[in-house]
Amino acid sequence: MKSETSKPGTVRVRALKFSGGRATPSGEFLAAEEPLEIRLGGRHFTLTMRTPGHDEDLVAGFLFAEGFIAGSDDIEEIRPVRGPRGKPEPNMIDVVLNVPADELRERLKRNFAVTASCGICGKTSIDSITRRVAPPAGNARVAPATLLSLASAMRSRQEIFAATGGLHAAALFELSGAMLALREDVGRHNAVDKVIGWSLAEARCPLSDAILMVSGRLSFELVQKAAAAGVPIVAAVSAPSSLAVELAQEIGTTVIGFLRAGGFNVYTHRERIAP
Amino acid sequence: MKSETSKPGTVRVRALKFSGGRATPSGEFLAAEEPLEIRLGGRHFTLTMRTPGHDEDLVAGFLFAEGFIAGSDDIEEIRPVRGPRGKPEPNMIDVVLNVPADELRERLKRNFAVTASCGICGKTSIDSITRRVAPPAGNARVAPATLLSLASAMRSRQEIFAATGGLHAAALFELSGAMLALREDVGRHNAVDKVIGWSLAEARCPLSDAILMVSGRLSFELVQKAAAAGVPIVAAVSAPSSLAVELAQEIGTTVIGFLRAGGFNVYTHRERIAP
Repeated sequence: MKSETSKPGTVRVRALKFSGGRATPSGEFLAAEEPLEIRLGGRHFTLTMRTPGHDEDLVAGFLFAEGFIAGSDDIEEIRPVRGPRGKPEPNMIDVVLNVPADELRERLKRNFAVTASCGICGKTSIDSITRRVAPPAGNARVAPATLLSLASAMRSRQEIFAATGGLHAAALFELSGAMLALREDVGRHNAVDKVIGWSLAEARCPLSDAILMVSGRLSFELVQKAAAAGVPIVAAVSAPSSLAVELAQEIGTTVIGFLRAGGFNVYTHRERIAP
Repeated sequence: MKSETSKPGTVRVRALKFSGGRATPSGEFLAAEEPLEIRLGGRHFTLTMRTPGHDEDLVAGFLFAEGFIAGSDDIEEIRPVRGPRGKPEPNMIDVVLNVPADELRERLKRNFAVTASCGICGKTSIDSITRRVAPPAGNARVAPATLLSLASAMRSRQEIFAATGGLHAAALFELSGAMLALREDVGRHNAVDKVIGWSLAEARCPLSDAILMVSGRLSFELVQKAAAAGVPIVAAVSAPSSLAVELAQEIGTTVIGFLRAGGFNVYTHRERIAP
């Protein structure tokens, strides 16, 4: 069925296009979705469906944003898993941690009990979903005009979205509005993990002078990931959920929704919006 | 912060609205997001973030779509979890199954190893993500004109989306285009589980004469859930992922993407599209 794999992160397939009462064959680019099995020290840990690319950032960001590691020093090595002939398996990755076994066990128990790849599922109980996170440090402020510029800056860099019309994105910006990094993924939480992983690799964590922006809706788990990375301001193109706003209010994160060219809503901690 | 809880599934919060260079206070409705702890026979099973409402359908649909139960007969009872004073806990639900313990253990092992609330995460290995599903039964056909009518039919019924601008939806339609059920949720997989749970309660499974439509993108896991419920045709307002199309091709599901008023794309099994 795949007739061609072109741009990274996309797959071209044949489709039949119905338009104006006519059906015509067409080649369509789809966002690539493939499973990634994450191992810890060679043992199965979790599985996530993701768009291939930046897998090391995804894994490091995931472990950090979910509280399994305290920083990049806790990672000894991220390495491919090799198949029978020594060839790296494209959809498997192994992380060797620098964390003592008993401490790791404690973190696993506290955060998951079992394993999970998207922030929430698999966690042991309702009490456990809110992890303890420190309030954002620093004194970040952003001007409304800067915020208004972010949506178009982001859209212009969403290359896979432009090709496929179907992908989430997350981007980190400086308070000046300069873009630091943008990642696209079929999973919104993966896109966020990837930019947080990038910031770890660049030794930029905690991100106390950054804005995290996501392409769609903003859920509880994304606010929690942002807080774990120290991000004080989180913006979304679309709406936040009730629990995203509730959590942000409590932990001190500024949440902005419906951020588009013409305006935006500020739901929490508006003191960071300053002309 | 919550000043009012109005329509079911929404929460009203105060926000600051920036528009045309001015900031004005406003009341905004947000899609409600709350955790739901699912127990099996009193023991913790999994946790999902969902929009409250139709929780019993959500749980039954989830268990069915993920292969834990073979039908509604496998459910003895779905009951609330009661707190210390006998009051039902709003975010907990307990399912008593009719499945022998050793068979249930086997299903758990096969599907998850552990627990997970969104289709993919927590599953044991890449091999396990593709569950065995029978190809859709029957001889379903749908006319292009009928398909073209679904998007607006769906949008007109998305009440929480209309109020909040931020919610996923899933709907089941007859092949004639008549809507059977629509559910909204902060999680797209939850919305799908809810309509599948509805069909179980209505004794309409397998859904061999139905179309499942989702509001946004179409992922691998949603195609798999649809297949488990016997749905032959799956449509999405936005793009399918590469793996969604790959799986659908393999198991015999018709996948339609970018279904809007003016047209749509057919990616797989186009023999079901007939004037």
